Amino acid sequence: MPMKAEIISVGTELLLGEIADTNSTYLATQLPVVGIDLLWVTVVGDELDHLAEAFRRAMGRSDVVLATGGLGPTQDDLTREAIAHVLGEEPVIVEPLEKEVRAFFDRLGRAMPEQNLKQAMLVPSAQTIPNPRGTAPGWWVEKDGTVVVAMPGPPGEMQPMWLNEVYPRLRSFLQGSVIISRTLKSFGLSEAGVDEMVRPLCSWSNPSLGTYAKPDGIHLRVLARCGTAEEAQGLLAGAEAEIRRVLGDYIWGVDDDTLEGVVGRLLADRGLKLATMESCTGGLLAAALTETPGSSDYYVGGFVTYSNEAKVAAGVDAGLIERHGAVSPEVAEAMAEAARMRLGADLGIATTGVAGPDEMEGKPAGLVHIGIADGNGTMCATGQYPMGRSRVRSFATIQALSLLRQRLAST
Amino acid sequence: MPMKAEIISVGTELLLGEIADTNSTYLATQLPVVGIDLLWVTVVGDELDHLAEAFRRAMGRSDVVLATGGLGPTQDDLTREAIAHVLGEEPVIVEPLEKEVRAFFDRLGRAMPEQNLKQAMLVPSAQTIPNPRGTAPGWWVEKDGTVVVAMPGPPGEMQPMWLNEVYPRLRSFLQGSVIISRTLKSFGLSEAGVDEMVRPLCSWSNPSLGTYAKPDGIHLRVLARCGTAEEAQGLLAGAEAEIRRVLGDYIWGVDDDTLEGVVGRLLADRGLKLATMESCTGGLLAAALTETPGSSDYYVGGFVTYSNEAKVAAGVDAGLIERHGAVSPEVAEAMAEAARMRLGADLGIATTGVAGPDEMEGKPAGLVHIGIADGNGTMCATGQYPMGRSRVRSFATIQALSLLRQRLAST
Repeated sequence: MPMKAEIISVGTELLLGEIADTNSTYLATQLPVVGIDLLWVTVVGDELDHLAEAFRRAMGRSDVVLATGGLGPTQDDLTREAIAHVLGEEPVIVEPLEKEVRAFFDRLGRAMPEQNLKQAMLVPSAQTIPNPRGTAPGWWVEKDGTVVVAMPGPPGEMQPMWLNEVYPRLRSFLQGSVIISRTLKSFGLSEAGVDEMVRPLCSWSNPSLGTYAKPDGIHLRVLARCGTAEEAQGLLAGAEAEIRRVLGDYIWGVDDDTLEGVVGRLLADRGLKLATMESCTGGLLAAALTETPGSSDYYVGGFVTYSNEAKVAAGVDAGLIERHGAVSPEVAEAMAEAARMRLGADLGIATTGVAGPDEMEGKPAGLVHIGIADGNGTMCATGQYPMGRSRVRSFATIQALSLLRQRLAST
Repeated sequence: MPMKAEIISVGTELLLGEIADTNSTYLATQLPVVGIDLLWVTVVGDELDHLAEAFRRAMGRSDVVLATGGLGPTQDDLTREAIAHVLGEEPVIVEPLEKEVRAFFDRLGRAMPEQNLKQAMLVPSAQTIPNPRGTAPGWWVEKDGTVVVAMPGPPGEMQPMWLNEVYPRLRSFLQGSVIISRTLKSFGLSEAGVDEMVRPLCSWSNPSLGTYAKPDGIHLRVLARCGTAEEAQGLLAGAEAEIRRVLGDYIWGVDDDTLEGVVGRLLADRGLKLATMESCTGGLLAAALTETPGSSDYYVGGFVTYSNEAKVAAGVDAGLIERHGAVSPEVAEAMAEAARMRLGADLGIATTGVAGPDEMEGKPAGLVHIGIADGNGTMCATGQYPMGRSRVRSFATIQALSLLRQRLAST
């Protein structure tokens, strides 16, 4: 019998629709990998009696209760109080925790508001879970065969706490069955297209195969459930080989790979330096490239040329812009070459297009040209993305990274 | 007393994290406008006993139960069966409904699979709700003072059914109350700090006040509930004035305002042009500024200078970098001035810091200098953010926008 889990998402802001409950969705994708069945998700507001009702019911029917939110310092933050109430225990301030909270504020150079002391509270049945990203430690409670875990609400604090602390502890609770998954990431096909190509492989029930549409392409998740890790690894390896045979170069990465990370590795392996010049993506491409630690080894820098004057100042021929317009394949290629030359890089990549919502130079919103220059010549890829300003910008950024990957992988 | 509502989201795919529960988020944003309090959201899989448990509990504690999903034609679709079970009634196929389902397939020019007959079932206590977008009609049940509404799961069917059918029927249930909210956005204080400053105002129960920590600062939401819109607006205006008196210049915007949008408006109003030069934020600041449509009116462009060579090529004095290091207030100010001069802008803003994870030039990860140049001189603000590479970068970006706003608002 797999363990039965339940999620409690705490916060009146969730019930008011001010923020979406992304934590539950995140945890829901994580639990199958650990081999835990999620049976219930409950969203509840910041009211002690409702919270206590939710925790009491969850502890009665589930093996694992994962709560997020309600660990902040204000009077509205009542997750600790609700758990203590259900356990029939009294929360007290614990000195080592108080020191940690005070140290966190010292590092920020701010005085600790007195109410943050609340975050140093604990009950006898609870252990704390470290939270290097914030002032609220998590709680880990084991009581009558049920594990209750309380994590902070901000995803930037919750996700590392889950990955580094909660997930490893839960794994040690599981007996016998090993579950291992592998995600293959593709770009350039629709979800239905991927589905059609891999459907002949889908008679598998173990490993199982799922497809997911993500901003950086279609992800395929293979999940193997076996008695031993070796068996599971063997199943996964076989499935991966089959999928790669069918999807070939559409697959750009696995698991935690990011497109910018893959591009970075390819550049670093080849000892190449890259420069950018962006119009419609307005800095998003540079921001993606520099997200990877160590990117200064291969990314020299770039230009955001949001006016014709800025393009000319960065080395693009004014006459070319005059003749073809700023949104043209000719200017995209000239921008890529100018970025490369100005910053002494081996490769230059550039974007110019109409992010929208309005058309420009008589060209429609969503039209994007991506230029690449590599010292032997220049090329341009053109796309039309009818999706709204934000999505045109981010899709153009992903498309640019994907083109760069293909160009680098083929050399 | 406002009516108490509860949402039941049905579908094992939600518990597996394959799709996010966007229906609940959508309905949660709709309910306050109707004056209904949402107290619980429950996500439950396609299992009859779990569904019946969820509906029984909901009908016991809530005035309105809104269910989405589980109305499809397959054996897994059990919402109708669960409601019938809790009511103790037997679903039967109803002839007019059967005709409608058959007509839907006729219009598509397809034969109706026999299992779609399930969608023509009804119990005596239920009325159907038309669904022009699909084959599954909704159910409207009134029993012992509780309204139960079952709507289809696909948002493209659920949202029109909500707007055109369910919302108007629910409104006719409500007496008198209007709910209006306003969000004030602050930057530069911790959540506890804001809480301490506004707590003296918190004796209000109407309007009510909530604080929320967001990436761009602490948001304060005021929510007024009155007999008329005028009364509610009056309460809100009074509360806003009180909060502004206490938090003053920490408040940078309201409701849908973004920091980059506010900065953009200030620049446009003053007819000023801005240029950027980014090291540690690597393009994020340019990307934020260009997210706003029309930003090319005030944002000229910028440099991402991810190497010393790129800084020098963009006009920063090499000797200055030599003497003080690239991560220094002196270089931050020189970068801001160089961006301004190179691109002929009125204002320049620059970031240089250590995004991490490793230290640089003997300076710790998280140290960030933000320089501003406005033609009359330069200034620099320095911060230390101990939060990991991604968050250092995004926090530095928000901090830069906030400084720019303060500088612009004070001139």
